[in-house]
Amino acid sequence: MKPKAAYSETQRLVNGVNVDELFKTIDTVKRQPTVATFKFRAGNQWLGGGHNRTTVRNFYGAGQEHDRRQPFVLDADEPPVLLGEDKAPNPVEYLLTALAACVTSSIVYHAAAKGIRIKEMESRVEGDIDLQGFLGIRDDVPKGYREIRMHFKIEADAPAEELEEIVQLGPAYSPVFDTITRAVPVKVQLER
Amino acid sequence: MKPKAAYSETQRLVNGVNVDELFKTIDTVKRQPTVATFKFRAGNQWLGGGHNRTTVRNFYGAGQEHDRRQPFVLDADEPPVLLGEDKAPNPVEYLLTALAACVTSSIVYHAAAKGIRIKEMESRVEGDIDLQGFLGIRDDVPKGYREIRMHFKIEADAPAEELEEIVQLGPAYSPVFDTITRAVPVKVQLER
Repeated sequence: MKPKAAYSETQRLVNGVNVDELFKTIDTVKRQPTVATFKFRAGNQWLGGGHNRTTVRNFYGAGQEHDRRQPFVLDADEPPVLLGEDKAPNPVEYLLTALAACVTSSIVYHAAAKGIRIKEMESRVEGDIDLQGFLGIRDDVPKGYREIRMHFKIEADAPAEELEEIVQLGPAYSPVFDTITRAVPVKVQLER
Repeated sequence: MKPKAAYSETQRLVNGVNVDELFKTIDTVKRQPTVATFKFRAGNQWLGGGHNRTTVRNFYGAGQEHDRRQPFVLDADEPPVLLGEDKAPNPVEYLLTALAACVTSSIVYHAAAKGIRIKEMESRVEGDIDLQGFLGIRDDVPKGYREIRMHFKIEADAPAEELEEIVQLGPAYSPVFDTITRAVPVKVQLER
């Protein structure tokens, strides 16, 4: 009866998310909250000028260490107008990447939990930076983004009037959205 | 006299940053502050489950649009314990990447402006997330990072007691550090 089992496993996927596993995870965390403790990590090496390389290898979560088979390697650089060689996206573009990816996945997972099937989704994100801050020209100008705007296009098995609620699952649950909008403490230390 | 010119151009590089260009940029911005207005952008397409793809193509800055010769493509996914297939770093790891890259470059550029030569620099970054927030189990648990810690190792042409000041140029000027620690507004809209 293998084909039937395979069929039933397929049935549990909503938006590519295994919702049985998702609900099992929620039940496990409710019984044992420490399972929800995660530590994400990255290492960075400076390569010269605005060019540096981040390596993502492992994280801690669900009570144990997790090692990737292969580390993920992410280069950053600056475009010529910011005195780099444009070898890779720059750090503030990586921040937009983190945000777009996270809001997207948060919509996908939470829609799946509600049984809402999403067919297609794309988004664009834009943020404003005034470099007078970074350049140290004006103290009253923020160094980072003043504002970030995201626009989503979604096709889902839901009435048009529900699409707005579906999109808002993103800002409601996204860890990166929350990190950027909440003011998270970042400690920077020299290692000797 | 070409060789001499080439030599003198080499001389202007500190930490791989063309400091003549850097000071010229600062002078230009002081005379014409709108030159400092930048808009960074990214587009994202959902590929299924926790897998999505961000494309970085262009930005606005220094009074004009800038197109990359080739777009930068950045996939995100989740590891199996978070119901993904581990095809790529996850969104909260992209956030750490943005932070590590930005604090590093901010140290490099501002040290260059001060004439401090950095020989080597590497860092590691770690952040804590309690998934009870994302999973909607507890409203009083933040969805994003509770805290992020960065550790830097630096070798520079500077006395050991100045290394601490050099590292602190990062949090003092980094746009991503500022964005994460300040609470930046993010607007999320449905496009019809």
